[in-house]
Amino acid sequence: MIVAMQELATEEQIDAIIQEMVEAGVNVHRTTGASQTILAGVGPTQALDLTAFEQMPGVMYVHRISSPYKLAGRGFRPEGTIIEFENGVKIGGNEVVVMAGPCSIENEAQIQETARRVKASGGKFLRGGAFKPRSSPYAFQGLGIPGLKLMFEAAREHGLLCVSEVMEISQIEPMLPYVDLFQVGARNMQNYNLLRELGKARKPILLKRGIAGTIEELLLSSEYILAGGNYDVILCERGIRTYETATRNTMDISAIPVIHKLSHLPIVGDPSHGTGRRDMVGAMALASVAAGADAIIVEVHPNADKAASDAAQTLYLEQFDTLMGQIRLVAKAIGRTA
Amino acid sequence: MIVAMQELATEEQIDAIIQEMVEAGVNVHRTTGASQTILAGVGPTQALDLTAFEQMPGVMYVHRISSPYKLAGRGFRPEGTIIEFENGVKIGGNEVVVMAGPCSIENEAQIQETARRVKASGGKFLRGGAFKPRSSPYAFQGLGIPGLKLMFEAAREHGLLCVSEVMEISQIEPMLPYVDLFQVGARNMQNYNLLRELGKARKPILLKRGIAGTIEELLLSSEYILAGGNYDVILCERGIRTYETATRNTMDISAIPVIHKLSHLPIVGDPSHGTGRRDMVGAMALASVAAGADAIIVEVHPNADKAASDAAQTLYLEQFDTLMGQIRLVAKAIGRTA
Amino acid sequence: MIVAMQELATEEQIDAIIQEMVEAGVNVHRTTGASQTILAGVGPTQALDLTAFEQMPGVMYVHRISSPYKLAGRGFRPEGTIIEFENGVKIGGNEVVVMAGPCSIENEAQIQETARRVKASGGKFLRGGAFKPRSSPYAFQGLGIPGLKLMFEAAREHGLLCVSEVMEISQIEPMLPYVDLFQVGARNMQNYNLLRELGKARKPILLKRGIAGTIEELLLSSEYILAGGNYDVILCERGIRTYETATRNTMDISAIPVIHKLSHLPIVGDPSHGTGRRDMVGAMALASVAAGADAIIVEVHPNADKAASDAAQTLYLEQFDTLMGQIRLVAKAIGRTA
Amino acid sequence: MIVAMQELATEEQIDAIIQEMVEAGVNVHRTTGASQTILAGVGPTQALDLTAFEQMPGVMYVHRISSPYKLAGRGFRPEGTIIEFENGVKIGGNEVVVMAGPCSIENEAQIQETARRVKASGGKFLRGGAFKPRSSPYAFQGLGIPGLKLMFEAAREHGLLCVSEVMEISQIEPMLPYVDLFQVGARNMQNYNLLRELGKARKPILLKRGIAGTIEELLLSSEYILAGGNYDVILCERGIRTYETATRNTMDISAIPVIHKLSHLPIVGDPSHGTGRRDMVGAMALASVAAGADAIIVEVHPNADKAASDAAQTLYLEQFDTLMGQIRLVAKAIGRTA
Repeated sequence: MIVAMQELATEEQIDAIIQEMVEAGVNVHRTTGASQTILAGVGPTQALDLTAFEQMPGVMYVHRISSPYKLAGRGFRPEGTIIEFENGVKIGGNEVVVMAGPCSIENEAQIQETARRVKASGGKFLRGGAFKPRSSPYAFQGLGIPGLKLMFEAAREHGLLCVSEVMEISQIEPMLPYVDLFQVGARNMQNYNLLRELGKARKPILLKRGIAGTIEELLLSSEYILAGGNYDVILCERGIRTYETATRNTMDISAIPVIHKLSHLPIVGDPSHGTGRRDMVGAMALASVAAGADAIIVEVHPNADKAASDAAQTLYLEQFDTLMGQIRLVAKAIGRTA
Repeated sequence: MIVAMQELATEEQIDAIIQEMVEAGVNVHRTTGASQTILAGVGPTQALDLTAFEQMPGVMYVHRISSPYKLAGRGFRPEGTIIEFENGVKIGGNEVVVMAGPCSIENEAQIQETARRVKASGGKFLRGGAFKPRSSPYAFQGLGIPGLKLMFEAAREHGLLCVSEVMEISQIEPMLPYVDLFQVGARNMQNYNLLRELGKARKPILLKRGIAGTIEELLLSSEYILAGGNYDVILCERGIRTYETATRNTMDISAIPVIHKLSHLPIVGDPSHGTGRRDMVGAMALASVAAGADAIIVEVHPNADKAASDAAQTLYLEQFDTLMGQIRLVAKAIGRTA
Repeated sequence: MIVAMQELATEEQIDAIIQEMVEAGVNVHRTTGASQTILAGVGPTQALDLTAFEQMPGVMYVHRISSPYKLAGRGFRPEGTIIEFENGVKIGGNEVVVMAGPCSIENEAQIQETARRVKASGGKFLRGGAFKPRSSPYAFQGLGIPGLKLMFEAAREHGLLCVSEVMEISQIEPMLPYVDLFQVGARNMQNYNLLRELGKARKPILLKRGIAGTIEELLLSSEYILAGGNYDVILCERGIRTYETATRNTMDISAIPVIHKLSHLPIVGDPSHGTGRRDMVGAMALASVAAGADAIIVEVHPNADKAASDAAQTLYLEQFDTLMGQIRLVAKAIGRTA
Repeated sequence: MIVAMQELATEEQIDAIIQEMVEAGVNVHRTTGASQTILAGVGPTQALDLTAFEQMPGVMYVHRISSPYKLAGRGFRPEGTIIEFENGVKIGGNEVVVMAGPCSIENEAQIQETARRVKASGGKFLRGGAFKPRSSPYAFQGLGIPGLKLMFEAAREHGLLCVSEVMEISQIEPMLPYVDLFQVGARNMQNYNLLRELGKARKPILLKRGIAGTIEELLLSSEYILAGGNYDVILCERGIRTYETATRNTMDISAIPVIHKLSHLPIVGDPSHGTGRRDMVGAMALASVAAGADAIIVEVHPNADKAASDAAQTLYLEQFDTLMGQIRLVAKAIGRTA
């Protein structure tokens, strides 16, 4: 940590800060400039509430130097994390993996048809929501575990892996047999109790960035899972809230290369939620791949217009097939496969 | 709902939209202008995913007219909601109620001293967190129910009411005996399962706006509680995330008059989280009162600099006492009491 | 400036940074921790592009310590700036000064009637736009200098001062005889050529915060004027762009106390542009005063609904009169006059 | 325009609105629902300040239907605009055009070396700033017209076209002989006087999106130029301001497909300003191409670390050469050339 004193700070004020830092177990190095004194603190500042220092008399600015996450940082595993699933599919390697499926699991016919077509087009994961928290209390709320079973059976029948969102600690156990990858939704990015429990789970986690989450906060949230011993975490960019209203969210494509630089964890692009508009999904999926995404997750539905939720951002299966072809070409252009 | 067609939309396209609307049970009124056709739909559009219409051929724009919340709307109770607590304190009436206490309940001495001083200064509620979800997994996590009991006893001893945050459904029952007002934190503004359960609770709810929540979303979230039969909901503005970094959040003071116009529910200002800086709390508390807030909630601590959490934004008890005097004067200036 | 090296940085990398800093005339103090080396640089870092250091090998983080503005900083004039106008009115002192008038000067009758009523209600400045840059090329564009003369005559006739927006360097000279205070609009906050010229003007400047301007950028912009020798600068908070759409902008009331802490310059609240809605202007004007604003600027019009521009946010003269009474009461509550 | 009345609106209130609309020359179509009346207005609403209607008694909501831009809309030229330069280079066609050069023109050697290498790598435009408005008054401010001449000569010598930023009306004439494309910077996106003058210029315009500009506002700004008879406008996405601080701006890649849908104008991606970080420029350039950008503009410099401005986001010429190769591959993957 760095404490920059005001130009007019007195020696007493400087001493008070130094004493406070020492009490917190921090080693202090003092730099006295012509007009300003700077204190550099090295030590256990991880759990320190630095903003408290900011309001001590004579202090101009306090700044944390060491990044607040450790296990998620690139330095922890410079070569990058590759997560291998039971059928050999890997996320974080050279292949760009595609996950697709409906927003909500609706019935067997829907999910079977989707699985068949996703597989045929080259997708590796079947996605689908069993529990649907909707902003309006009057909307469809999901099929629950029975729906999840339908999806799991459809996935296995067609050689696909299965990803679905877990929303509460109590859902972890019942979901465990039917998912290969637990998804944590944007609204739960900072549900630390849930993250902690998932740190003990024996399945990989797909952690979505919150709608107002910074990249640093996303990495810090992943730290909760990693700290529990579950190192199989995949991050996901799905759009942030900005002043622009032409798209539902603003997909922060630059989060992809930034996260690759800061962390060893794989990163997935979600152009469906990122844009909220079917006609933008293709362009943003390709942009994600070009920017280095390790996987893409998209919403598809045999009858997209009639989807029980997220209809507007859901691709038709024919559109998905076309998109898969384009993804393969762009992946190849940057030296990867898909 | 309104569907505006593109200038070049064909009759077939217009008919397809009309048919889709009619199938959804909506009455359609068509306006054919020189260059553009507009379809106005009246009926059960509440649960309709309007964005799906936006992508039908020939459509230029779809717009929802009826507000998606009903029970929270001003029209439901034009005279405004006043919530009365067991000791006669009312929120939503002429008096500006003040709630104060530490971020975290730490020990009996701390909470007793705080309660005594809050009461002496004119506060009506004691606040304090028993469960502390922290962004860093390495920070203090709260005392739990035993801490809550300490706070409740201190509150009652000094004639105060008690407000504390509930974070999970499982906490509702154990917390029930020790709170007069359940607080739902910003991170749970869209935790619909929790909101639904609180709709069945027999205690009032203080619902905080999420860090990226719009006013409309806040009202929609309150609808979940109201729909369960619990009409005692108080909303809370506590700062939103913007590009400005001088303050931790940007406190949206204008949310106070906007909510008073749109809804009958009382609204509370939280300048501690709204700014994240002790030296700004006073000014923003007074601004909230001047803008019409029905209550103010602030963090105070006998030894603010050493508070186990949120130290930087916590007032000393002497500062709180001074602030109470100022709040009373500003409340009086706008014709209220405090 | 502070350069924090990565944990694995080599001595060669550290030396390269040190050499680069020294070449730039910066004195370097090195702190070698157990796991990390930190370099503190003291010297002429004002004009240095620090981000370039961030990408040198082995660097983890670069941080500027000294604030990039000097003349605008609180330390330059700790007692605060008070600007006195020719008729004795002062901004920055104990009195909260009120400025009011139409968005656009339309004709003599309109501006005369406005001046008479603004004066009668207790306003001190008449405001009005002569040049109106509108987002739509098809809207009313202003009367120019002839309009400004009408306003100036009306102001003087009723003992008011005159404030109007200058949009281009070429307008400074012709406007000079007819304004007591030049307003720089939000869109010109970073028009440095204009600011530089105004630094040479012999009249005070009202500098509005840009719609996406940070407080630091606003202060830096004011530095351009101050550096030219014109120390009579008043800052203005008029709302920033956020994701919330219930109001046209989000008025950042906390900018008022923040600026008072960081700078000696007076600060004005503009609730008309801050909200864009007439029904919110009153509440936000009072909030501004309660938060410590030195002046308030509002749009009023004898026939607000028919105003040639900004009709929706313009107060009727009767509303303004009522508001003036409330402003006086709130100012008194915080120990000021109005 | 659509006016939705409140549920309890009276007939008198509805009549008042209708009369107001009729007075403004708008044809009104009334839809009376069970609980709500909706008025659809068709006619000259372009220049109407609709927000004024919002505050009339009984009104719930007012919404503009017809897009406020006409000439920039896709419908005006459904086949898209292709701009052809004197040497046959086209923007808006199948080829992805690359523009590169230093932030600031510094001296002949720098710009000659850059031109030579940009050409060798396959770039088509040389870019460089002659006038540099810097946020700090203490930083380098540009070489002016003499610098521009140096760049123009270097460009022509190597068969490149020339793009440079115009900042004031007075610069248009002197710049005219030395640019093939006038750039309007983000800070001038809403400098309507400048845009109007450029509408009369005989050279194409590259209009950058403001840091807080919406896509709609960008299109409306382009309308100022188009309305003057200059139809050769190219739009540019260069990052918007959001709460995320990991990158200087958040590059809104989705603006590329959105603009292609809404408008016929070509769109350019600027990953240098979009990210502010050299190590992210490559990924974001490729993402822009994958998303459909018609051109890419990047900052390059023979000695990027020592660039007089924007050093941190400037590519070395070797990096640019590598990037050109990748751009060609990604362009090919989506069926274009580069």
